Amino acid sequence: MDNHCFNFKRYSLLDNHCFNPHHSALFTDLYELTMLQAYYAEGMTATAVFELFFRELPARRNYIMAAGLDDVLSYLEELRFTDDELAWLEQRGQFSEALLEALRHFRFTGDVYAVPEGTIVFENEPVVQVVAPLPEAQLVETYVLNQIHLQSVAATKAARVVTAAQGRNVVDFGSRRSHGTDAALKVACTSYLAGAIGTSNVAAGRLYAIPALGTMAHSYIQAHTDEMAAFKAFAREFPETTLLVDTYDTLAGVHKTIDLARQLGDAFKVQAIRLDSGDLAELARSSRKLLDEAGLEHIKIIASSGLDEYKITRLLERGAPIDGFGVGTELAVSADAPDIDFSYKLVAYDGQPRMKLSSSKVNRPGRKQVFRVRDDGRMVGDIIARCDETLEGEALLAPVMQNGKRLDPGQDSLAKAREHARAQLEALPSALKTLERAKAGYPVKISAALTTLTEELQRALECKLRS
Amino acid sequence: MDNHCFNFKRYSLLDNHCFNPHHSALFTDLYELTMLQAYYAEGMTATAVFELFFRELPARRNYIMAAGLDDVLSYLEELRFTDDELAWLEQRGQFSEALLEALRHFRFTGDVYAVPEGTIVFENEPVVQVVAPLPEAQLVETYVLNQIHLQSVAATKAARVVTAAQGRNVVDFGSRRSHGTDAALKVACTSYLAGAIGTSNVAAGRLYAIPALGTMAHSYIQAHTDEMAAFKAFAREFPETTLLVDTYDTLAGVHKTIDLARQLGDAFKVQAIRLDSGDLAELARSSRKLLDEAGLEHIKIIASSGLDEYKITRLLERGAPIDGFGVGTELAVSADAPDIDFSYKLVAYDGQPRMKLSSSKVNRPGRKQVFRVRDDGRMVGDIIARCDETLEGEALLAPVMQNGKRLDPGQDSLAKAREHARAQLEALPSALKTLERAKAGYPVKISAALTTLTEELQRALECKLRS
Repeated sequence: MDNHCFNFKRYSLLDNHCFNPHHSALFTDLYELTMLQAYYAEGMTATAVFELFFRELPARRNYIMAAGLDDVLSYLEELRFTDDELAWLEQRGQFSEALLEALRHFRFTGDVYAVPEGTIVFENEPVVQVVAPLPEAQLVETYVLNQIHLQSVAATKAARVVTAAQGRNVVDFGSRRSHGTDAALKVACTSYLAGAIGTSNVAAGRLYAIPALGTMAHSYIQAHTDEMAAFKAFAREFPETTLLVDTYDTLAGVHKTIDLARQLGDAFKVQAIRLDSGDLAELARSSRKLLDEAGLEHIKIIASSGLDEYKITRLLERGAPIDGFGVGTELAVSADAPDIDFSYKLVAYDGQPRMKLSSSKVNRPGRKQVFRVRDDGRMVGDIIARCDETLEGEALLAPVMQNGKRLDPGQDSLAKAREHARAQLEALPSALKTLERAKAGYPVKISAALTTLTEELQRALECKLRS
Repeated sequence: MDNHCFNFKRYSLLDNHCFNPHHSALFTDLYELTMLQAYYAEGMTATAVFELFFRELPARRNYIMAAGLDDVLSYLEELRFTDDELAWLEQRGQFSEALLEALRHFRFTGDVYAVPEGTIVFENEPVVQVVAPLPEAQLVETYVLNQIHLQSVAATKAARVVTAAQGRNVVDFGSRRSHGTDAALKVACTSYLAGAIGTSNVAAGRLYAIPALGTMAHSYIQAHTDEMAAFKAFAREFPETTLLVDTYDTLAGVHKTIDLARQLGDAFKVQAIRLDSGDLAELARSSRKLLDEAGLEHIKIIASSGLDEYKITRLLERGAPIDGFGVGTELAVSADAPDIDFSYKLVAYDGQPRMKLSSSKVNRPGRKQVFRVRDDGRMVGDIIARCDETLEGEALLAPVMQNGKRLDPGQDSLAKAREHARAQLEALPSALKTLERAKAGYPVKISAALTTLTEELQRALECKLRS
């Protein structure tokens, strides 16, 4: 019953029989399991509707780019309890035989509706809607939230950085500071979704079939006794490389690049230099001048070093001749908005709308649809409605899974999602693309029918409370 | 060569032949691979020393609790390129035959020195020291930084939350808002390391053999037509549960708990109620009064709802009779300090100390040791020294891996690390345990010998630059 590789803090993924906690049905909050036991005991297996949405934009965000759907659908398709996991649950002595038996046959058989990957969303708009037997819709809460939250945080940050770069290349350099391996992979993918041209992370490059990029670190230069010797040796192996010039003195490094070009003549294929410290705008200007004077106008200048959308904006305002940005920590952790208050709420059970009344956390009942109105292509306002309404504008939520099977997203789904994300950013009101909080937020209305339903149910619940 | 389950954004872990990006040798920055190719081509395989440290404390931190070592050592022991990964790298057409051949036989054969898991560390103190042939020490940079960074961010946040709770229970509720699956698991583990009593995450509970805790969500109450019916049904399945009382009206929920106690008599075993909204201090006081008046003094009060160390401190300052805290988002993302400027720097190669000069990013050369001086058990100051010095105080860095094999940490290593972390926090000057930045930081000195070495090398490098 016990797993030989299941030691403290260790799971060998070289041994494929091991419990993999990243993609386990046990990746859930314990209360999901205790609630499931109660639901099964009470025969509460009718259809539930849960909606995933956020209530408030983070202070420094004007919009959220929704992401993470593909991982959610893969999880729902593959979700099952292995014998090994069931045995472990049984060992705990906490759960009923009935629950364990139900989990043995557990599959997600429901339907999912969602906004397309890369869609811009606002307060209270359902991003994912799960319609399934109550225990199924309940169990998946933790993973679904975990992935949509992380990937939407990361896609939104990347969209801001890419917007700030005004068409210049942005590359994700964040893997060393992202919160773990999963975040590193998802930050790479969602950065690409939002318009970055690639990532430094090789595993992400492979997993998502996106460009993996990078050349050298300071350690490479330092390991040599001489910077020029390091440049030469590296250019021999990778002629079209980017040289990191700031290990000892940036402009001296640029001079060495120019010397190397003279020495190598036609064999000189170096494409760029990278600046990673100091006053990047000033150094970029001086470097550009030196390179141009040496006839090396084609050599590009890449900058990195604690960059984010604010610093990139200031660099470009100062006219820094920088052609591309490597963005690490800030893209990885989204320090100015590392979390969004996404939650996953029951809005209907067995055909009846549901809501809670807890102070300041009221949520609107019933299954919903979001209609987006455009004017000359530009987004001008959304209306959150009951799902049985048909209002003007484009309906954002569409079916993505039926009876536990994902609907075919077609070929090149990441490329399509990236194009969708680009078009979404283009259609966004320009006031929302600024870095600070826009004075007037994007207009999101609630339909009359949804308002009526909310007020009626609220009155009924309050009446019941008083009785 | 291609892997049938290697689709866009999908990797099925049900199929064990698949590429697992979380524990792959490809989880590295591309530049590590290009540098390796150059190192091998140049025959640069002598011993390198890399040190992992941070330069500056985040603005809202007075100390960092180092964590993540176990995952680093597992990674180093298991690191190898599979045939499948090598085939993928070859397909890129970017790398030399010589590199691919070297990677085929690649193993980490070096030594590692580190401070024990849960040790409190400060600016510029090496946390992990890797002594290995240059290509080996270089390749592992990305993963080693990724894990020590995440886990130290999380352990430090948890230490602050646990300190603020002044002996009351703290449980990690953060999995839904942590940055991905890896962060959820590591936040659970490092929270426990730092003194939390458990986690809501079942997979983490299993993986680390730590308590998995939790009872019910609002959705459970809402799915019922009646709150009392929900309480009764749940208590039937789990008599010793915690009842969530705030779905509609907190004090009405408490009254129902009291009614349930009267109805069930001796069969009433409910242990606690949970408050998840509103003015928690006021509601805790009113709830405590109602419960006590009903003779239910033994029922504990658990609070959750956007808590962090600041809010917990204010609740306790207001005298809130709360027995335990469920802490979610803030523990998960450490929003007030989501990143630490950890880096992994070459400090020696082939017996020679190395450093870089880039403006404001100078690092001290040579392999080091940290000596910690105590007075009556309390930490009073550290000295960063050359590794060949012997100074007063306790040497923090000790060998943890030799020739690529981890030294036996013994049984119950998490329990031991947790006790070590507790003792570290106890020995910390109390001024550093406050939530705001302490006026006087912890004294960290540089030894005379290390200062001399730094100055000499700096002079030599500057002299060379001018020549």
